[in-house]
Amino acid sequence: MTIRVTVWGENVHERENKIVAGVYPDGMHNCIAAALNTHDDIRATSVTLQDPEHGLTQARLAETDVLIWWGHAAHGDVEDAIVDRVCDAVWGGMGIIFLHSAHFAKPFKRLMGAPCNLTWREAGERERLWVTSRHHPIAAGLPDSFELEHEEMYGEPFGVPEPLETVFISWFQGGEVFRSGLTYKRGAGNVFYFRPGHETYPTYHDANVRRVIANGVRWAFNPEARIGDPNDAPNVPVEAAPEPITARGPRLHEDGEEGFR
Amino acid sequence: MTIRVTVWGENVHERENKIVAGVYPDGMHNCIAAALNTHDDIRATSVTLQDPEHGLTQARLAETDVLIWWGHAAHGDVEDAIVDRVCDAVWGGMGIIFLHSAHFAKPFKRLMGAPCNLTWREAGERERLWVTSRHHPIAAGLPDSFELEHEEMYGEPFGVPEPLETVFISWFQGGEVFRSGLTYKRGAGNVFYFRPGHETYPTYHDANVRRVIANGVRWAFNPEARIGDPNDAPNVPVEAAPEPITARGPRLHEDGEEGFR
Amino acid sequence: MTIRVTVWGENVHERENKIVAGVYPDGMHNCIAAALNTHDDIRATSVTLQDPEHGLTQARLAETDVLIWWGHAAHGDVEDAIVDRVCDAVWGGMGIIFLHSAHFAKPFKRLMGAPCNLTWREAGERERLWVTSRHHPIAAGLPDSFELEHEEMYGEPFGVPEPLETVFISWFQGGEVFRSGLTYKRGAGNVFYFRPGHETYPTYHDANVRRVIANGVRWAFNPEARIGDPNDAPNVPVEAAPEPITARGPRLHEDGEEGFR
Amino acid sequence: MTIRVTVWGENVHERENKIVAGVYPDGMHNCIAAALNTHDDIRATSVTLQDPEHGLTQARLAETDVLIWWGHAAHGDVEDAIVDRVCDAVWGGMGIIFLHSAHFAKPFKRLMGAPCNLTWREAGERERLWVTSRHHPIAAGLPDSFELEHEEMYGEPFGVPEPLETVFISWFQGGEVFRSGLTYKRGAGNVFYFRPGHETYPTYHDANVRRVIANGVRWAFNPEARIGDPNDAPNVPVEAAPEPITARGPRLHEDGEEGFR
Repeated sequence: MTIRVTVWGENVHERENKIVAGVYPDGMHNCIAAALNTHDDIRATSVTLQDPEHGLTQARLAETDVLIWWGHAAHGDVEDAIVDRVCDAVWGGMGIIFLHSAHFAKPFKRLMGAPCNLTWREAGERERLWVTSRHHPIAAGLPDSFELEHEEMYGEPFGVPEPLETVFISWFQGGEVFRSGLTYKRGAGNVFYFRPGHETYPTYHDANVRRVIANGVRWAFNPEARIGDPNDAPNVPVEAAPEPITARGPRLHEDGEEGFR
Repeated sequence: MTIRVTVWGENVHERENKIVAGVYPDGMHNCIAAALNTHDDIRATSVTLQDPEHGLTQARLAETDVLIWWGHAAHGDVEDAIVDRVCDAVWGGMGIIFLHSAHFAKPFKRLMGAPCNLTWREAGERERLWVTSRHHPIAAGLPDSFELEHEEMYGEPFGVPEPLETVFISWFQGGEVFRSGLTYKRGAGNVFYFRPGHETYPTYHDANVRRVIANGVRWAFNPEARIGDPNDAPNVPVEAAPEPITARGPRLHEDGEEGFR
Repeated sequence: MTIRVTVWGENVHERENKIVAGVYPDGMHNCIAAALNTHDDIRATSVTLQDPEHGLTQARLAETDVLIWWGHAAHGDVEDAIVDRVCDAVWGGMGIIFLHSAHFAKPFKRLMGAPCNLTWREAGERERLWVTSRHHPIAAGLPDSFELEHEEMYGEPFGVPEPLETVFISWFQGGEVFRSGLTYKRGAGNVFYFRPGHETYPTYHDANVRRVIANGVRWAFNPEARIGDPNDAPNVPVEAAPEPITARGPRLHEDGEEGFR
Repeated sequence: MTIRVTVWGENVHERENKIVAGVYPDGMHNCIAAALNTHDDIRATSVTLQDPEHGLTQARLAETDVLIWWGHAAHGDVEDAIVDRVCDAVWGGMGIIFLHSAHFAKPFKRLMGAPCNLTWREAGERERLWVTSRHHPIAAGLPDSFELEHEEMYGEPFGVPEPLETVFISWFQGGEVFRSGLTYKRGAGNVFYFRPGHETYPTYHDANVRRVIANGVRWAFNPEARIGDPNDAPNVPVEAAPEPITARGPRLHEDGEEGFR
């Protein structure tokens, strides 16, 4: 079975900043998609903020098994209606991976329900990621730790909810630590946050980083059919109760009526 | 130390529906607040949807240690700006308790990042709540189970994230089950969801329910000072790094600059 | 890839009790293994308490991807050395599924670190299992709930640690509830507890129960190579530290020395 | 209310090693107890491995609200019967705090159900602990990070189950990270693991470390009465079922009979 991945790229710094354009001449999203396409079981394409509906039409999401999100400079330009649509897709079973500065992306903040803040420093310092959950599928094939010689620092406290599992923790040369790989479930959808990926460094060309993202895609993928309306809150009429009961006492609602929202 | 509680009441059915007015002549919010005020360590007052700014001014939230939320018919009337303010207060350390139909309240959905849906039936059936975490402070003084003779049914699957702990699970006469007591942390704030409380039944007059809510207040309360800006994501300049480092490599940001949002 | 499953059966009541022998003429373990063998990706065999080393030799465990454990009347007859061996295999990456009365099996108690107690009643009452985590792979292909017309009751509080995820909760006719599907990770191994399966009822002939067990096998399976010594706590000599440091201050240990245990 | 703390000390290196004796002339256990006794709400005393029953008689445990455990060189000398007794007390509601090398203490391994292994290096390097859960009561009054100039390194992967919450993560000068503050619940008892405390360094004289331990005591303390038999698994006879039912189908057990173990 082939996993259909859509890589969402903000695509701002790649066009406006010479350094970033030099590292990612085809854009970060296309670099990430190309890395994924080296795997037979994954077929990745990309869309960007500048596309109509940011590239995330209902049709596109319906054909996306796992969405990958990278954004930084233009979080505020993402339309709320698209954010709602993405969250609905996740709640219905689509997997989603948030990379690096997407910790402040609207859909990540919406799915976490938390401030998602951190401390940061752009000094090209060394980062070393340690695996904290042995044999976790997202860490498959990795050593116990791996290094990125130049990265932006993100520091604790990281304002996210306690995850299902902490998969990676980063050590930074300047003295900070950070929970760099975190798993969540929201509705029927699997959510993975992965820290590395500052746009001025060649992080998405790194073999270990690419492996983590491919592993993350497989972990986040759910083969079950998307839930039609993941927000549905159906009334169960008395006569459809699993056990026979008789209605009693005062009531606000008629049988089969819609609930309040 | 006295815990300052604000009970937020939607206050719609109490005024518009004779049955509800009969059960809660002073409004549900005042019934809940009065029950809490029988405890020496708690001082509870109430506000309603109809108050200016829904009663939740910045000043009011600053003086609230734990906010209790009951809403049902008018979730959509709660202004988004107030929801943001409530979430900020929670992220800064305010405790919050959501009761019953508040599973679809805007601040609950915002804090959960999930659909928060369920199945339901209004048949006045029997509910029995079982304690699933022995000696949890929210269950202090309770037997292993207690009954509510007449309640609305809420059924699984309940579309919320996996909690820190599941404290209660309900059995319903009609054949369903429901995770009725769930704890979360969002930012620095403790969050408790407690299921019972359909407005046509005298649930908030029940001694065990009152005990759970008082216990929940004590559990959710955090004596530390509220965090000033719970969304702050400070830059750590190179010269302020805990370990001495030298900046290297290309940069997007100047020292001490604001990050993107 | 084929998943190699070993079903461990206590094999006591099947031989000593006419009712159980009638329901499971080939033993419960063989009934479970046969059900799994209808799946192309699973190859299941069985061993029993009465086999040498209870059938769980080092060689056997090395060839087992997922171990399934059913025991009830003879928990105390399982040798502690075999329990240690099973736990080591789990910690090294073997998946394990505990069924029904195995809540009191030695390896389950050892892996949980908790009393694992519950309340119980043998009255052939109706059990209805509800899915609490939509699209969880262990619930794949199941409806939101399914029934077992005759089962033993297990009731909360269930003395186990908070799980990674609660997948099923049971409703019982007599008024109790129970967390019937729970996931854990211990060391590198995935652990799944699944409640149904009292030996006097035909539970393991039920299509939904069989589906859960097959799903559970796929969920618990980890394709990575087993960790050689899952208890190893290696010293990292100063000269092998990821960052160059110089030893300083007083010391108890010589370089490369074994730590205390 | 005064919290009664018992500090359990292995008391080996303090007597046999001049360096340790110099840092802790009264023993580590007495240093820790003295620090706790500066708080009005805590009354701490100590016992050691060399005491009869290791100082942990049934009477002593019954009068202990929170037990603190430090051991290193003599884990194997702790009798299994005492370990069982300690676990029973925890399951019944006693709080317990494990310090540093107690990651390999028998009761910790028993309560975790996991290998509890790690990597280590004794080089007197710098450790910096970061708070990862803002406003957690165990971090009350602490800055976002604090340093210990000389400590033994413990590195990930740390072979413990995913905790309820990760409260601290350590950065080490030599390049490793470690989850240094972890909370669990086992049975009715709260469990806290806190990393620092190698015996050749003056860690338990550090003001921040002392604060964490005092906070941990308050967090782990449960004022409810200890559960009499935390392993009890009572039969609920048919006539005592919460809902009226009639027994049906075949049975193994007589009413009120003991279950198998």
